[in-house]
This record gives sequence, structure tokens and C-alpha cells, in this order.
Amino acid sequence: MIIAVVGLGLIGGSLCKAVKAYTDHFTLGLDTDEETVRRALADGAIDSIIGVNGLIDADLTIVSLYPEQTVGFILQNAAHFRPGSLVIDVCGVKAPVVAAVSPALRERGVHFIGAHPMAGREFSGYGFSQAELFQSASFIMTPALDADPASVSQLESFALSLGFGRVIKTDPAIHDANIAFTSQLAHIVSNAYVKSPTLASGFGFTAGSFLDLTRVAKLNEDMWSSLFMLNREALMYELQTIIAHLNEYLDALRHGKSESLRSLLKDGRVLKESSLNI
Amino acid sequence: MIIAVVGLGLIGGSLCKAVKAYTDHFTLGLDTDEETVRRALADGAIDSIIGVNGLIDADLTIVSLYPEQTVGFILQNAAHFRPGSLVIDVCGVKAPVVAAVSPALRERGVHFIGAHPMAGREFSGYGFSQAELFQSASFIMTPALDADPASVSQLESFALSLGFGRVIKTDPAIHDANIAFTSQLAHIVSNAYVKSPTLASGFGFTAGSFLDLTRVAKLNEDMWSSLFMLNREALMYELQTIIAHLNEYLDALRHGKSESLRSLLKDGRVLKESSLNI
Repeated sequence: MIIAVVGLGLIGGSLCKAVKAYTDHFTLGLDTDEETVRRALADGAIDSIIGVNGLIDADLTIVSLYPEQTVGFILQNAAHFRPGSLVIDVCGVKAPVVAAVSPALRERGVHFIGAHPMAGREFSGYGFSQAELFQSASFIMTPALDADPASVSQLESFALSLGFGRVIKTDPAIHDANIAFTSQLAHIVSNAYVKSPTLASGFGFTAGSFLDLTRVAKLNEDMWSSLFMLNREALMYELQTIIAHLNEYLDALRHGKSESLRSLLKDGRVLKESSLNI
Repeated sequence: MIIAVVGLGLIGGSLCKAVKAYTDHFTLGLDTDEETVRRALADGAIDSIIGVNGLIDADLTIVSLYPEQTVGFILQNAAHFRPGSLVIDVCGVKAPVVAAVSPALRERGVHFIGAHPMAGREFSGYGFSQAELFQSASFIMTPALDADPASVSQLESFALSLGFGRVIKTDPAIHDANIAFTSQLAHIVSNAYVKSPTLASGFGFTAGSFLDLTRVAKLNEDMWSSLFMLNREALMYELQTIIAHLNEYLDALRHGKSESLRSLLKDGRVLKESSLNI
């Protein structure tokens, strides 16, 4: 099939490269940065450079932009997608994006499915894109209850063909509640962790646990602040929850309650062990 | 030399195995659990089983017990160490342990150096011990300013012979402030992280960031609550610091201040990048 990718950043660029590495599909690339599209063409990541008028040729259009840009692009270009073709987005928050773009596409007979390829790196941009980015990763899709079954199954096969390890279908709101906990909270906690003045004292030795806790502190603040704002309620709930729990440990320490502290730690250990089976 | 190891748990057992795997030293093992010492002897991890009266033969005695037990054992058995020999502990908190045991040993002419082999696993006990545990890890030692230079250099060579990647000498209080931040806080944050009710909803997909943040939630609550209590002040400071920072992100979300949120995230990203050079 003919696949158009809008936005050749880390994810869009990697999708193009994975398509060319693992499938026989034809790729069309669209990006506002001229150097990026020329580079993608030279790399063989895309077979052709297009403008919005070229979207009409695509069987599948993957809009791989930041959340607000994704919504803006789809709404402004709804008339450019071919009726009967499939359009997906790849934003890390699904409910608001799906709600914003679905009606306009449905009205024109364009199929739409929200997606979230759970892959990324601590670097952004086409320069870091790679065909192997999605190996063994989860591909989450949030098709509407009345989504076109052929499109759902086409997208599922497509994801697996790029190396994704599994495809998970879920509801946009359930996705967002889960992602607030498993990913968004992790980025905020990690980012907050490094703000202790002790970091700067430069003692020169770190534990493996420190490296684990702070790996994702190095993030793209433009993308993440946008994702966080779109998922405010769920993320606020998770932040309030962890702050409340941290205060319990602090309280036990402050009052020298070693048995309470032990018990708090045991509770967490048992929950972690139970989660290992998820 | 003849090395006595008191307490054949994960660390003590691994030290014995590393000594036998990488050096020609003779190992004496002492543990209250008879099955463990017999197993260590059968494994060749120790060359001989001793009681406290056997400590007199050791050139180096490594007390590898939990913090309170370490202090109790050394004070109760101060008369059993040979004057001129070296005794070390391996507790994760140094200032209170060093302060508690140094005077009694000094009085008897026994050399003492506090140590912290920065290695561990999420499992406890001799059954998980392994000769390779210390490969590339940091070996921290906190010799007193007037420590016996020959003992300091002997301990440094010994650590490197077991596979440790580097030896760091520092002050006990500096060690404890740093470890509160780089290790103890990480364990509490990780342990608190899994307490969100969202964990139990079992959506079935987790991000790599979740796995990073929660790896050390699986901890030995007996050992860690003891270490935390011995380092209360430093750890409370770190907990208060991260809670205050988390509240800043929460506040930005609550009031829809996306530019503040972006700025908070950027501050953390820049600090993380600066820490990559440590």
C-alpha cells in the first residue's frame, strides 16, 4: 500500500525506516522542514516527498506530530484525505485527540483510529530515527466501537509487520488513565528527582538505583508538557497519590517509627511483586 | 591472607565466592545459620567454618551483617579480633556505624575501616550470592583521618582484586548524605510509586519508564528500614525536597499553567544532562 507519514521526527522517521526495512510498502513523506524531507529521501526512508495535496494517494496516513499540531493538521486537511482510506495519529494521549478529530473525518468517510506506539528515546528528531525502534514494543490502538473492521485488522497487521511485539486494543480513556501512571508520572518523578541540591554537590558516586530513577528526567519538555496538559486530571490524581504516599514514609521517619516504616516498605514490596505478573 | 567473613548472606556469601574465584586467600565463615555455613563449605566459598574464637586467626575480618547486628557483633566480640588485624563492616550507612565501633577497636589495637560495597540485588540471602556480584561496582571506604596507612592500602588492593571497578575514599557523613540521595531516596520513591490504585486495575501495558522507576520497589524491608532509620536526617531532607518539587508540577497542572510546567520540565532536563558528566 501507499503510506503517507506527516512529520518526520523520531517516531515518523523511524516508522518510515521500519516500513522500508521490513515491508514492501511505498512511503510518502511530508514535513515542514525541507532539509529533513530531503535527508529522508536520500536515506531511502521515503520514496517521495509530498505536500498536503499528495495525501489523496495514501491508503494509510500516519500523522506523527505533537498533540496540538496533530489535531490542527487533521482538521485543516480533512478534505485532503481520500474517503475510504485510513488515518491514524500516534499521540501519547488519546481521548482528547480522538474526540477532536473523529467527527470531521467520519463526516467525510475517512476512517480514523487513534494509536500510540509505545516506543521512544531520550533524543528527538529525524536524526535519531531508526528502523529498529519498535522491536518488541507495544502498539496500542483505540478504535471506536463502530470502527471499520477492515481498517482495524489492517492496522494491527501493519504494526506487527514493523516489529512491534504486541498490539493492544483499548478505550481512549482507559489508555490515558494507564499512561498517566505508567509513563507520565514516571517522567515527572524522574525530572523532580534530580532537583535535589545534593546532585550538585558532586560526590562522584551514584548507585544503579539513581540511574534507574533518573533515566527519563532527560525529556523533550515541549512534547511532554503538551501531553501532560491534555491528560491533566489523570496525571494530577497520580501525582497526588504518590505525594500522599511519600508523606507516609516521611512521617514514619520524622517520628522514629521504625516498625511503621518497615510496614510501609513491605506493602510496596508486595505490590511490586504482584505487578511482576502483569 | 586469612579472611574471616561474619554473616554469609548475599554480600558476605558473594565476597567469599569472589575471594575464592579471583584470589589465593583462605576464607573462614561464621554464620548463625548452620545450614548456610555447611552449604558455603560444600560450595568451596569458605575453606573452614569458625565460631567467634576463630576470629583470632584472621588478618582481615569482614562483618557482613545488618547495621544493628554489625555494631552489636563488633562490640561484643572486640576481644576476639587479633590486635594489628583489620576489621571492616559493609553497612550502607557509615557515620553511625563507624562512630559506634571505632573506639572499642582502637582501644585494643585492632584496625577498623568502614566500607560500603555498592552492589546488591533485589534478592537476599546466601542462595543468591555470586562471585561476579562486584564486577565494575564502586567500593566506598571511609577510613579515619589517622587510619593505619598499610590497612587502607591493603583494603584498596583487596577490593580491586575482587573485581570492583573503583575504590572511593570519603568521609562517613559525606557518604551518608550522598547515599540518602542516590540510593535510599530511590528505594522509597520506587516503593511509593507502585502504591497507586491504578497498578491494580491491570490494564496490561507498562512503559519502560515504569519498569525503571519501580525496579527497586522490591526490597528487603528489614534491612532498608534499619538503614533508613540510621540516616534519618539526610533522608528526610531528600524526601522533603522531592515532595516540594513534585508539588510544583502538581500546582502547574492544577492551574493549567502550561508554560510553567514546560519550564519545570526543562529545569530537570538540564540538571539531568549536567549530571551525566558526573
